[in-house]
Parts: sequence; structure tokens; C-alpha cells
Amino acid sequence: MRQSRMFIPTMRETPQDADSLSHRLMLKAGMIKQMASGIYTYLPITKLVLNNIEQIVREEMNAIDGVEIHMPVLHPKELWQESGRWEAYGSELMRMKDRHERDFALGPTHEEIVTALLRDELKSYKKLPLTLFQIQTKFRDELRPRYGLLRGREFIMKDAYSFHSNEASLDETYHDMYSAYSKIFSRVGLNYRAVEADSGAIGGSHTHEFMALADIGEDTIAYTDGSNYAANIEKAGCPVPEVEELNSGREVEKVATPDVSTCSSLAEFLDITLEETTKTMIMRVDNDYVMILLRGDHELNDVKLKSHFGTDDIDFATDEEIQNLLSASPGSLGPVGTDLPVYLDHQVRNMQDYPTGANESGYHFINVNHGRDFEVEAFGDFRFITEGEMAQDGSGPVKFMRGIEVGQVFKLGTKYSEAMNLNVLDENGRSVPVLMGCYGVGISRTLSAIIESHHDDRGIIWPKAVTPFDVHIITANPKDKEAAEIAETLYEDLGKHYRVLYDDRKERAGVKFADSDLIGLPYRIVVGRAAKEGKVEVKARDSEESMELPIDDVKQYLEVNY
Amino acid sequence: MRQSRMFIPTMRETPQDADSLSHRLMLKAGMIKQMASGIYTYLPITKLVLNNIEQIVREEMNAIDGVEIHMPVLHPKELWQESGRWEAYGSELMRMKDRHERDFALGPTHEEIVTALLRDELKSYKKLPLTLFQIQTKFRDELRPRYGLLRGREFIMKDAYSFHSNEASLDETYHDMYSAYSKIFSRVGLNYRAVEADSGAIGGSHTHEFMALADIGEDTIAYTDGSNYAANIEKAGCPVPEVEELNSGREVEKVATPDVSTCSSLAEFLDITLEETTKTMIMRVDNDYVMILLRGDHELNDVKLKSHFGTDDIDFATDEEIQNLLSASPGSLGPVGTDLPVYLDHQVRNMQDYPTGANESGYHFINVNHGRDFEVEAFGDFRFITEGEMAQDGSGPVKFMRGIEVGQVFKLGTKYSEAMNLNVLDENGRSVPVLMGCYGVGISRTLSAIIESHHDDRGIIWPKAVTPFDVHIITANPKDKEAAEIAETLYEDLGKHYRVLYDDRKERAGVKFADSDLIGLPYRIVVGRAAKEGKVEVKARDSEESMELPIDDVKQYLEVNY
Repeated sequence: MRQSRMFIPTMRETPQDADSLSHRLMLKAGMIKQMASGIYTYLPITKLVLNNIEQIVREEMNAIDGVEIHMPVLHPKELWQESGRWEAYGSELMRMKDRHERDFALGPTHEEIVTALLRDELKSYKKLPLTLFQIQTKFRDELRPRYGLLRGREFIMKDAYSFHSNEASLDETYHDMYSAYSKIFSRVGLNYRAVEADSGAIGGSHTHEFMALADIGEDTIAYTDGSNYAANIEKAGCPVPEVEELNSGREVEKVATPDVSTCSSLAEFLDITLEETTKTMIMRVDNDYVMILLRGDHELNDVKLKSHFGTDDIDFATDEEIQNLLSASPGSLGPVGTDLPVYLDHQVRNMQDYPTGANESGYHFINVNHGRDFEVEAFGDFRFITEGEMAQDGSGPVKFMRGIEVGQVFKLGTKYSEAMNLNVLDENGRSVPVLMGCYGVGISRTLSAIIESHHDDRGIIWPKAVTPFDVHIITANPKDKEAAEIAETLYEDLGKHYRVLYDDRKERAGVKFADSDLIGLPYRIVVGRAAKEGKVEVKARDSEESMELPIDDVKQYLEVNY
Repeated sequence: MRQSRMFIPTMRETPQDADSLSHRLMLKAGMIKQMASGIYTYLPITKLVLNNIEQIVREEMNAIDGVEIHMPVLHPKELWQESGRWEAYGSELMRMKDRHERDFALGPTHEEIVTALLRDELKSYKKLPLTLFQIQTKFRDELRPRYGLLRGREFIMKDAYSFHSNEASLDETYHDMYSAYSKIFSRVGLNYRAVEADSGAIGGSHTHEFMALADIGEDTIAYTDGSNYAANIEKAGCPVPEVEELNSGREVEKVATPDVSTCSSLAEFLDITLEETTKTMIMRVDNDYVMILLRGDHELNDVKLKSHFGTDDIDFATDEEIQNLLSASPGSLGPVGTDLPVYLDHQVRNMQDYPTGANESGYHFINVNHGRDFEVEAFGDFRFITEGEMAQDGSGPVKFMRGIEVGQVFKLGTKYSEAMNLNVLDENGRSVPVLMGCYGVGISRTLSAIIESHHDDRGIIWPKAVTPFDVHIITANPKDKEAAEIAETLYEDLGKHYRVLYDDRKERAGVKFADSDLIGLPYRIVVGRAAKEGKVEVKARDSEESMELPIDDVKQYLEVNY
């Protein structure tokens, strides 16, 4: 493709209103143009990359017997009423009326449509399993669209839906999808982790989020290098220390601790480290109250607490409740001498002679030891893991990274088939609701995530699997006719084997180089002054070094290196 | 692809509510499912064919330097107000409000968006010409959606827009597009004609419609075999006969013609043929009145009349107006003895001794001759051509065919660039509005048009260029394990070179054959009883004959024949 016929409106200035790195780079590289808040035109470079991502997704879906369909954007209200989501989805669901005043939603997802599609056509378990997918524009009326394509109102998704007559079949397809997603995100060049996304409360893991590791991400992921381990920090299990034999310890003492109400001020006051302190919290669990002890430097994790107690109705006790229970205030709470059941985080188990609040303002106990000075109801994992601790699966010390959700696999079970009467006859002739799974990939999000992790100060560095072109040929001096002819010939030759963008524009070399770095194709070939001596300059985008090569060697160089 | 994992819900009955052949066949072949009036889900077979059509369109657009982009579905009202179309488009424009009560249109076409896109980015004529295209879902709220995908409310279009700093450049791209469209419609297997779509009144042809010839079409096309000639019947020029030397003729006679008010009753009364009669019409042209004479069997063509008189304000004179002018009524009108200017259709020029009305109820003149009995203001082409007449370009006798519009190329000129301020600086540094062209292909329409012209009583017959699969392998008896194994091996082998659909379902042979004919893949291979002797049955979908071939010869057979 000749760049003079392309449309790549690059920018020199850094756009002010862009709120993420990928957003800035896409604007600077002339890849997108905003038409309204969260609504973009995808310019040629973007469209080429999207086509490549879509093709990879399509291949991996086909490889697991996914069958492509195309469902409508306009969804009749009646179907969303059947599922109960016409109301429940709220103002993120875009709605409209047609000329006959009939209500439609603009599809943000297609569970209703696909369930309605199949309930008329599916009679017997013999037609199952079945996996349908589509790649399509979706709509979600985000309250605050931001980060360019990462949180837009009109975006491209691959969504897939699977249908099964038994759990084993759903499990199998879920597993196939999980593998396919792993292949997709590897192929497009993302450093990603599959993260268990929900708590175990409902019964076993039935959804994973695929998170691309990137600074802009809205979730924190705990992961380890060189392994598959990854968990949303809300779920990442903390290491459980081996139980140590403890001696009886020193005697409890009550100490006046004026103005001390935080662990760090207590540590300072007692001249110990933060890790040697404890913190005590009173939690309301349904209608009861419990006391939780953590090490002073740790943070309470309410998701784990909910999982431990098997209820969602957990909250911090109010100051008033605490006053009623202990006649004390937060900042001086402790387990000694209370009737409340006391739960200790695993990390407190091997601590000894530690300070706690005395349930009296301005006083702490020191040299407290559990078992001796108070009863332990149970030990458990009640806190967020911290960086550097051993991962739950022993694969190494965890690191933290922000993550962008680029995909999710989800076992829906019978939620939609029951609400919308999608049944089949099973082996015994009984009518049973169909089991379903749904599986999404954010195509335009994936593109943004790729840019978030493949760039340098000068622009994008496309992974080869998704790059819009393979090679960028540039004439350094547009007035040099001989060089232009040589470039033309090279463009023709390489074009037989590679997708070549040929910068034939009448622009200064500096402009061309800057644009080339922004656009970020894997290889750049500059046809300059040395072309007369049969030489061109070749540079890989991800390298700082360029080299002069005889023109005739360029093809071979690319064959070896590409 | 194994058919057991596909989703092709074929039907045996002919669906009652389908109102076109392609609609019926798409329903019977399990290709579409209606979700609301004019809104369909495209099932797997349809999606595969659409992907093929889109790829052909993409290739031909790329070949003429068209650059692919992706513009949004949601169009801000403000842009449509700038072009004046927010009001003008009427109720076919689907509209919605977002959560902030901002108005959007659901794009039926993208002139506003693409013009707004470029006006910020395009500064100089040096960046032109430029051709952008997209393949995308469009929305039009048809009052009466019908014919399946032919007239839907949500449909897939390829739309392209070109930008130019001078007419010559626009002409060139228009010509390139015309050629690309010809290639596209040839490649997908359509019998099509490019038809001049508008009258010459505005000044030269600046739009062509590409019509696929098909019975269901809403327009009538006059065309000739073995040539490119085609015209909408409203524009198709009639042959102009050579002027013959006429003798002076018989004397005019006034005859009583009681109850005669039509040409056919006059012919019967006078015992002459319809072709020997004439018909006289009074037309109001702006504020004047003219008389038009046609041969009795011809039909007045108001489009040609408007073109002849250079005005759109033409209508039949009312009975009252005629009474005022001639003291006569329609049915007995004629040119003899009136003051009105009389225009004769070319076909009347060589007529002699013909009857006309006498401008007196119940009487006609016979043996009328123009020039002798009344003055001729002018001869002209005022009628519709009839089948069998020589085409205007002399390429042969015209035939009539209904046509489906599958594409249109259109010179927009500066309509949108002037309304929306899309200007560039020209060679002399002057700001000039950009010239634009727009070019559409109805992708889902094209699919319907292909089916309209490629089928037989049993189902679809896909052209190879767009077929969803190349080969259909069928096991005749699902219980025959040996045959199943042979089929499996054949599926693997052929799958390396062809796209194979393998009917591995546990269905009766009759069901499989009927489905296979409906789906219409180019070649069917039946693995039946003879498989044990190493033989299978091969049949081309467009042939009535099948042949038994050694399994080892199948590949070679396909290589030669496909």
C-alpha cells in the first residue's frame, strides 16, 4: 500500500484529553477519531489490526468447533423482559423505539437473542453440544466513557454461547474455551493471566477473567513469574505458615498509650516494628459479632471474610455497636477479656508477646499470647496478600500488576434457559433446561491492551501476529528520483511476500521517520543516499540499531529474521 | 466441519410467510431466523457466504486503492442537522437518545460521519485523492420490510466514499469503482447490468445502479443479450424510425363512434389493428398545455417527457382543464383543428391515414395525416420501449427483466462538503470544497440476489466463489460402521484441500439428501454400500447425473472439475 493513498493522520503534539497510554498513542498514530463521547471511527491502521485479531479469534473458535453466526443489533424488548434484564440492566442498556413505537435494545450482549433463537429449533439432546459465536459491534451506555477504546460506548466483541444437555459437556467446552482463549491472547502478543473471577461461595469456580497485564488496568492481579498462577487480589490466597512450637512468653502488662490509635503510632511508641503489632476489628456477620485479629501491617479482605463465613451480609461494626459490645472505641480494641468469638489470621498464629488494645481508651496490653490470654475460635485467611509473599500454589513470590480484562469465560448454567424456556428432551424423553456457557473477548479492548504493553517513547511496536503491515519502506529524499525508483522496485519485490507500506509521500525524512516510529511496523527500510551504491538501511522497530544492507540481501534478511 | 456440530435448522414445509424465492429458500435451508420484522439472525451457512462475499468486495476495493475503516453505528444528531438530513430523512431514520438525553441516529449511510471525519484532518489537495470504505451493519426503518434480506431494517452494506480536488480525479475513481463493481458482481456469480439510474436533466450521467437480473426485482430493466446495454425502462431510449416518403393519403372523414373511448374499442369498431390507432393526451407543462400523440399501443413515459421539456412540473391535464381548452373530454381528443402545440412520438412519424378523436364526444376523424391536417410542433421519444424493439445502441432487440439493485455508484459532487465545510487548499492556495463520490454494495442483498438466480426445485446451487463449503460428504447409513470409517478418512483427506461439510448425523439417507440439496454445495460425495468395494457416489449439485468413482479417484476428479 502506498502511504499517499492511505489515511493515517498522525499528530506531533501529545493530545491533552487522552487518559491512557493506548488512547494517546492511538490518537498520535492516527488510528482513531472520536465522533462522540466513547464513540470512535477506527481509521485504516486500526481496522487492519482489528481484522488480524478477529481472524485469530475466528481460527481458534473454529478449532474448537465454534460456528460463526451474526445476530442483530436491535433486540426486541419482549425478549429482555423474559430474562428480566429489561429493567435490571439499567441505564447502561441503550434503548430506542421504531416507527411503530415498538421498543428495542441495542445489544450489549446476546444471551436473550441466542436463547430465543435456539428454543424454536432445538428439540432433542442429540443436537447438542453446540457452540455459536459472532464478532460484532456492541453497545453499552457507560456513565463515564474513558481510556479510548478501553471503555467505550460502541465496541467490538467476540461473544460465544454454548449449549449442553449435561454438566460434563459444559465442563468440556468451558475447558476448550479456556484453552482457546489462552491461545488467542498468546498469539496476539499479550502478557495475560487467567484469573478466577468470583468467590467460591456459589459452588466451585465457574468463571475466569483473562487479564492482560498493563499499568492502566482497573484490577490488581497477584501473579508469579514463570507459572500460570494468577488471581485477582481479592481472591489470591495467602501463605499459611507452618505452626511453630511457642514458649509460654512474657507476662501480660497493661501500658498507658496516650494518643496511640494506629498500629504505626503504637509501633513507634513501643519501639517495635509494624510487623510486630496486631490490629483488632469487630465485624458484624449477619446478626452476630466477631473479632478479627490481623498482623499490624496487613489489610482485611472482606471477600475472603464473606467466603469464610458463607454470607454476603458482613460489615464493620459501627462505633455505636462497638461501644455497646465492649464499652470501647476503635483504636484500643483487643481480644483479652471479651466474650466475642476471636478469629486470628494465619499470620498471627506464630506471633508471641504482641501488643493489643485493652478495650480502654489510652491503654494497650503488651506481651499478649493467644491460647493463654484469650481463646481462639479459628484461624483463617482474612487478609490481602502482599507483594513478595509465596503464592498459594507455591510457584514463587507473588508480584502485583494491574490488569485489563480482555476476555471472560462463564458457566451460565440454566439461568437463561429456565427464564426463557429453552428445553430439550433428554435420553429418557424428559424435558430438561439446556445448560449454557458464554464466552467473551473484547476485540477493540484487546487492541488497546496490545498497545499498552507494546510501545516505547516513540510509538507503537506491533507484535508480528497483528501488525497492520510487515515492512515500512521509506524514501529519505522525495526529490531523489533514482532512490524513488529503487524504492518502487523494492516495494514491488517485497510486496510479493510481505504486506508492505511504502511511504511515497513528498514529506521530509524527519516527518517520515517520526510517523514510522509512531505506526510501529516490525521492519523499516530506508532508501536513502546509499541506494545509488545499492545499499539500504534496515532497522527492526524493537531494536535501537540499524544496519546497512545490499538491496539484494534485504529479502534474505527478512526471511531469516521475520 | 462436522454437520453434527453445525447449526443448520432446515425445514421440510414451505414457509407460508415468505414472500420471495430467496426468502423461502433461506428459511428452508436453515440460513436465517427472523427476530423481529425485517431483523434477522444470520445462521452459519449465511455467515460463511457473507464472509466470502465480503472478502471479494474487500479485495476489489483494495485493488483500486480503497482503504478500509470502520465508522460508528451511532451518529450524533448535530452532524445530520448540518447536512439537513436529520429532518429530511423522515421516519426511515432510526433515532435514539443516550442516558444524557443526547440524540443519535443509527447510521443508514455515512456521508455525514465521513465528511466530519475528514474536515478536521484534510488540509491540502496534496492528500487527495482518497477512497475510504467499510463493511458494516446499517439501519433503515422500512415501512414495510419484506422479501427476507432484500428489504430488511438491519442489513450489511459496503459503503465507500471518495474525495477529490478536481473533476478529472472524481471521474477516474468513479470509473475505477464502476469496474470494481463489475468484477465483484461477476465474481459472485450474478447476471447483472449497470443501469444509468437518473435522468439527464441535472447534466450528464452521474450515477449507475447495478441491477441483478431476477424475477423478484422491483425495477424493470431493458437489456439486450450479449451486450452491456441495460437501462431502467424509465430511461431506455426507443428506436427512431427512418423517415419514409409518404403520399398525400385519403381524405379526412368524420365518423360517428358511439361508445368508443379507448384505442382498443376504436380498433375493433374500425376493424383495424391497435398499432394502426393513435392516442392523444393533453399535458400541463409548467403553466402551458401541449398535446402528445402516441401510437395506440404505446404508453406515455413521464420521465422522458420531463427530460424533453426540461421541467419536473408536468402532469396530465384534468378533465376540467381539457373541457376549458377544447370543449371536449378524454376519449375523443385529437389534433385536428386545435391551437395547442402538438408533439408526435417518433413512432407516429411514418403513420398515414390514421384515426384520431374529433374533440367531440362520440366522433372520430379517420384518414388523418400530420403536416396536412395539423401542424407538428416536434417529434420526440415520449413513450416506454416495448420488448422486442431494437435497443437504442443497436445491440439487438431489448428484453425485459426485473432487477434487484445490488450496488450503486454516485457522484455526490460538493453536496456534503459545502454543507459541512470540508475544504482543502488547492494548487493556488485557495480554499475549495472537496468533490466526493459514494459507492454502495448491499452485501446481504447480494446474497439474496445470488439465491434468486442460483437454485432449482430442490434448493440452492451455490456458485463456487461464494459457496459455504466446497464438498458435502454424506454417509448413507449411519449404522454402517465401515462406511463411516471410510467417510471419516475421506473427510480428513479432502479437508486438506477443500472446505468440507461432513454429514455425520444419525439421520436417514433421505433426510440427508434433501438437506444436501437445500444447502446446495457444489459437490456431494455419498459414502454408501459400495464403499466396502472402494467406491463412492459423486454428484455435482448443478447436474442431474451422479457417478460411481473409486475412492482413490475422488481427489483427482475434484482437481479436474472444481
